[in-house]
Amino acid sequence: MAISMNVLKFNASTVSLSSMHVQAPMAASDESLRKALIDKQLAVDSQGNVVRALKADKASKLEIDAAIDALNHLKLEKSSIEKELQAAVSGGDGNAVTREAFRQAVVNTLERRLFYIPSFKIYRGVAGLYDYGPPGCAVKANVLSFWRQHFVLEENMLEVDCPCVTPEVVLKASGHVDKFTDLMVKDLKTGTCYRADHLLKDFCNEKLQKDLTISTEKAAEFKLVLATLDDLSSEELGAKIKEYGIVAPDTKNPLSDPYPFNLMFQTSIGPSGTIAGFMRPETAQGIFVNFKDLYYYNGNRLPFAAAQIGQAFRNEISPRQGLLRVREFTLAEIEHFVDPEDKSHPKFSEVSHLEFLMFPREQQMSGQSATKTCLGEAVAMGTVNNETLGYFIGRVYLFLTRLGIDKDRLRFRQHLANEMAHYAADCWDAEIECSYGWIECVGIADRSAYDLRAHTEKSGVALVAAEKFAQPREVEKLVITPIKKEIGLAFKGSQKMVIEALEAMTEEEAMKMKSSLESKGEDEFLVCTLGKTVTIKDGMVKISKEKKKEHQRVFTPSVIEPSFGIGRIIYCLYEHSFYKRPSKDGDEQLNVFSFPPLVAPIKCTVFPLIQKPEYEAVAQRISKLLTAAGVSHIIDMSGNTIGKRYARTDELGVPFAITADSETDVTIRERDSKDQVRITISQVASIVKDLTEGHKTWADVWSAYPHHTSANGEDNDL
Amino acid sequence: MAISMNVLKFNASTVSLSSMHVQAPMAASDESLRKALIDKQLAVDSQGNVVRALKADKASKLEIDAAIDALNHLKLEKSSIEKELQAAVSGGDGNAVTREAFRQAVVNTLERRLFYIPSFKIYRGVAGLYDYGPPGCAVKANVLSFWRQHFVLEENMLEVDCPCVTPEVVLKASGHVDKFTDLMVKDLKTGTCYRADHLLKDFCNEKLQKDLTISTEKAAEFKLVLATLDDLSSEELGAKIKEYGIVAPDTKNPLSDPYPFNLMFQTSIGPSGTIAGFMRPETAQGIFVNFKDLYYYNGNRLPFAAAQIGQAFRNEISPRQGLLRVREFTLAEIEHFVDPEDKSHPKFSEVSHLEFLMFPREQQMSGQSATKTCLGEAVAMGTVNNETLGYFIGRVYLFLTRLGIDKDRLRFRQHLANEMAHYAADCWDAEIECSYGWIECVGIADRSAYDLRAHTEKSGVALVAAEKFAQPREVEKLVITPIKKEIGLAFKGSQKMVIEALEAMTEEEAMKMKSSLESKGEDEFLVCTLGKTVTIKDGMVKISKEKKKEHQRVFTPSVIEPSFGIGRIIYCLYEHSFYKRPSKDGDEQLNVFSFPPLVAPIKCTVFPLIQKPEYEAVAQRISKLLTAAGVSHIIDMSGNTIGKRYARTDELGVPFAITADSETDVTIRERDSKDQVRITISQVASIVKDLTEGHKTWADVWSAYPHHTSANGEDNDL
Repeated sequence: MAISMNVLKFNASTVSLSSMHVQAPMAASDESLRKALIDKQLAVDSQGNVVRALKADKASKLEIDAAIDALNHLKLEKSSIEKELQAAVSGGDGNAVTREAFRQAVVNTLERRLFYIPSFKIYRGVAGLYDYGPPGCAVKANVLSFWRQHFVLEENMLEVDCPCVTPEVVLKASGHVDKFTDLMVKDLKTGTCYRADHLLKDFCNEKLQKDLTISTEKAAEFKLVLATLDDLSSEELGAKIKEYGIVAPDTKNPLSDPYPFNLMFQTSIGPSGTIAGFMRPETAQGIFVNFKDLYYYNGNRLPFAAAQIGQAFRNEISPRQGLLRVREFTLAEIEHFVDPEDKSHPKFSEVSHLEFLMFPREQQMSGQSATKTCLGEAVAMGTVNNETLGYFIGRVYLFLTRLGIDKDRLRFRQHLANEMAHYAADCWDAEIECSYGWIECVGIADRSAYDLRAHTEKSGVALVAAEKFAQPREVEKLVITPIKKEIGLAFKGSQKMVIEALEAMTEEEAMKMKSSLESKGEDEFLVCTLGKTVTIKDGMVKISKEKKKEHQRVFTPSVIEPSFGIGRIIYCLYEHSFYKRPSKDGDEQLNVFSFPPLVAPIKCTVFPLIQKPEYEAVAQRISKLLTAAGVSHIIDMSGNTIGKRYARTDELGVPFAITADSETDVTIRERDSKDQVRITISQVASIVKDLTEGHKTWADVWSAYPHHTSANGEDNDL
Repeated sequence: MAISMNVLKFNASTVSLSSMHVQAPMAASDESLRKALIDKQLAVDSQGNVVRALKADKASKLEIDAAIDALNHLKLEKSSIEKELQAAVSGGDGNAVTREAFRQAVVNTLERRLFYIPSFKIYRGVAGLYDYGPPGCAVKANVLSFWRQHFVLEENMLEVDCPCVTPEVVLKASGHVDKFTDLMVKDLKTGTCYRADHLLKDFCNEKLQKDLTISTEKAAEFKLVLATLDDLSSEELGAKIKEYGIVAPDTKNPLSDPYPFNLMFQTSIGPSGTIAGFMRPETAQGIFVNFKDLYYYNGNRLPFAAAQIGQAFRNEISPRQGLLRVREFTLAEIEHFVDPEDKSHPKFSEVSHLEFLMFPREQQMSGQSATKTCLGEAVAMGTVNNETLGYFIGRVYLFLTRLGIDKDRLRFRQHLANEMAHYAADCWDAEIECSYGWIECVGIADRSAYDLRAHTEKSGVALVAAEKFAQPREVEKLVITPIKKEIGLAFKGSQKMVIEALEAMTEEEAMKMKSSLESKGEDEFLVCTLGKTVTIKDGMVKISKEKKKEHQRVFTPSVIEPSFGIGRIIYCLYEHSFYKRPSKDGDEQLNVFSFPPLVAPIKCTVFPLIQKPEYEAVAQRISKLLTAAGVSHIIDMSGNTIGKRYARTDELGVPFAITADSETDVTIRERDSKDQVRITISQVASIVKDLTEGHKTWADVWSAYPHHTSANGEDNDL
């Protein structure tokens, strides 16, 4: 996840910024409501005056009552507009409360079943650090193992594994030492630190959502601030904070001016304290510095991709958004090196037919939404810059949806022009919608030659590739040969500057001089380093075009980088997989994670129908068969009702449950349909293995084996 | 890898110390040789005098020649003793040079084929940091995946994944902040740092190995220093360095006194700089602090094991020994929590029959070698403290040998009494012999309740387990009730101290006081906090034994910890798998890594016999079939001879090669035997899959399919 993705990296505020792009179209209704509200308030005020005047004039009761009725009617209308406005500003869909409640239900289940644990909990934890507990750890291992299968093995990528501890020189070259910062302000009395943009954002949101009395102009201003938050300089941010009178949220103390805080964890390598080091903020640099060896390993051929899975670290100023913004996380990154003159991809046809939500920058700018687009067309029309970038977009789509991400809540959003690093050719984020909005989970960027050039410059080692020509090619090369003796005589002390300036001429300049010298015998020539024009005479320089044979073309490869935030993908997967359904007797809502077998932390539960030695022996026997087949499972011998045990296993997202209720055959139950089939004991392990490895679907099994009717099965459900 | 393993952790010098244990028995011959050498030198000197005297006396030529002959004979004898001594001190086996050459051959191959790469090489690297290149990364992934299968899945362990960034309070409780240090000395002029024990060790080894003239006494002294290096205090180390006049090796400048250097990489969490943090030096602490949640997750039942795979960090003062001592490495750790009163293991019988090299402390002390021992007997005889410890020793043996570690170069060495932390019940290291000597690769320690108690104390959260009794048990409890009013009257200002001292009495003390009070009406009682004895009178305290019903027993579980240094295991595996064999024409030595399919970085190579479109199409078809079957492979379409391509793939340790030489069937060649069979194209992927997943052996395939004779196969070999 390299620097061009400043969205995720240099500027943490973007998760919400990107959701701004979709909210923009709602601005109109919001604006008109604010206007209507002010108008209505005026009407209420004026009708109030009418009532007061009638009372002062001692008008008839009938007259006064009619006026009061009219006033109350106006007040009701005003209150209804207020409600509408309130709904409009709190997320547009009025579902903010529902979303929050949904998230709480997911997070409670995740934490209770130890999918994750706030790290160092017994010591009151550390913000932004989380442990994966047993089921979470298994999900993560499954996701990474599928990633390795889907990308590394399938594409023959060169996987590497580099250390987290990184010396300063590497991150100086990459730009992180200078630019990997967020702007921070300090409480001037307590020293507590805050992200400057967060405070400004919170202030604007608060005003927009809670204060219905602000003028339309003011509302528009706050919205503009929110939309341009990322572009504000340190000075502009500071000025806004001063202008709005924003103070420290906890103490109401005044705040310092904003200043940059580098997000890398710093340390020192070796005992002398002289080698500064950092915990890497991304894994990509480890690949770039190895380019030369990897290119050689690949037989000096392009294109090839290198990949790395590993920990990355960001010392966030004040982590928020739970599992989405953390201080240590797992990245899986691919750096695909390609000839900048040929970004076609031999396997593009395998994904070109795919259709999914795409959100090109034109659509974002014009306030439209993402639309279902055929990938092949997007590349053909140039919306996506090149085939290789398109190929990876397609592969990422397949990866995420196979994991269980809902394809209707997944979109590929193109970076806006000002969002992208200046060197990037194109950049698309795979964004997944969850209760926090649209979250960037994968960045797919064409970073051109930036990284390899930066390390070439800093290290002095040429990170380049060469295309050997089958036949040597004849090329015309400009040759400028200053005649040192003549120039020395003419310019004495300034001769060096003149020679250098001559040698630095562009082809056009040189050819102009050549014709001048040939026609007039001299030419006026500006030497910048001398700050004046000198006269170059015929004989002082030889300019010619010579034909040369070239055997190869040497160039810096372009890098196309798909970069995966594994923890974010997993969190979104949790939200997309979670649902509740009533228990059999209907008096309880049961939690279910509908993980596909591929990612389910445990593939299968085994239990005896009731606590009976024969059934327990069968359960143990099946457990051994599953272990031998390499199917991860748990065995539940507790005396709980079968329904309770199903519920417990559904809550962990276990797709299949085997119940031993005879000594010859058993039932397999599928989690989401709750359908059950009967299978002989000798077959059960291989069927579950086929189901979990994707060789069989539940539909296959359902059509091939006798069904277990609810008469004997569901009766036991709670 | 927790603190009791001070061998690997608090004291890096132990890799060589442990090899000292085996070298001890050789001391005798070495000593007698030194004595013989000095005697022979005296004889040479005295015979020299004889010759000189004869010459001075102008004796007959015959006489002089005879004396010179005798002198030369003595000199020859002396030189032969010198040679013998040289061999004895340079490792005993005289193979030091061979070992060094072997290691160079392995390391050269590893580095050339990118099994590993010195990290940040283009910036001249950082000592102790290495990247895994593509094949190394694949080997590591295979080792970890097998570890997960063999331990986590097979034993239903609870795997967790905790952050590397760790706040100070956790590592303060664990003891790392105070004790995770090595002693360091500084060059007083340049500031360069050295490990104090390394300098002393190098000095002693140098003297012992290079200086054959030192007296037996001096030699014994140097040996004693080497053997006790770990036990030397900072002062003792400093005194030795002064006594021997050791100076900075690079500059010959004087050195500072030794002082402790903490080996943890320090950093700071959050923007304020007030929360100190470290990169974890082991993964174990993340498990300990989660004990309560994990115990609950396991249904509040013991025993259970938690496991973690992850990066750990040690800021070594001056890393040596290549891949064995690095600053960042992958640990795989298991914490098995067990009732201290019952350390039996239900599955011990599955490993009790295993026989392998064990090296109990008695054998080490008496100078014997490790002997092949039956694990069941070692536990029965109490050599291994308990069944659970024994079970893990057995499982570790199976794990390592299945990876390909040579069982004859693997031993389990028990820690000496002084090597073990005071709280540890027993500790065994799996040591693997490689060119650096016997290397500790896995530590298996019974750490008793130390870690959970330390965190209970520091955090105030009780990390305990409870055994619920089926029937409540009646127990007698001592009850001491000071009568505050009486004590207050008698002791006024000191009453609090007296009350506390009374309450803190042991059962024995209390019962003695009770009988005194009953017989004499008073008792003399020492109150430590007052520093004096006071008189306790009858009526000031009530002491009784009361019967109480207890429903459960609450206790701190013991922890048995197998801890795996993954990088070290992999390096030893490389050495154990490497061999050379002559090329077909005999004029070249070819490198082979004989990895078992389980760990081989790539399972299979595919190539067309010659560059011919039909064969290339077959190779492509097989490649697709292998991808679909999930078998990692490479396809080699280069125009090299088949022999060259075999050699390249052997050097990567690829176990099988498929050569396409027809459109119906192909050959599969096994790497080590070079045997080939013919298989139809449709079968080839499933056979290779079975071979690599261990469902079939090469012997099975060899007996089932037609052999490909050398007449058409080997002819192509180079």
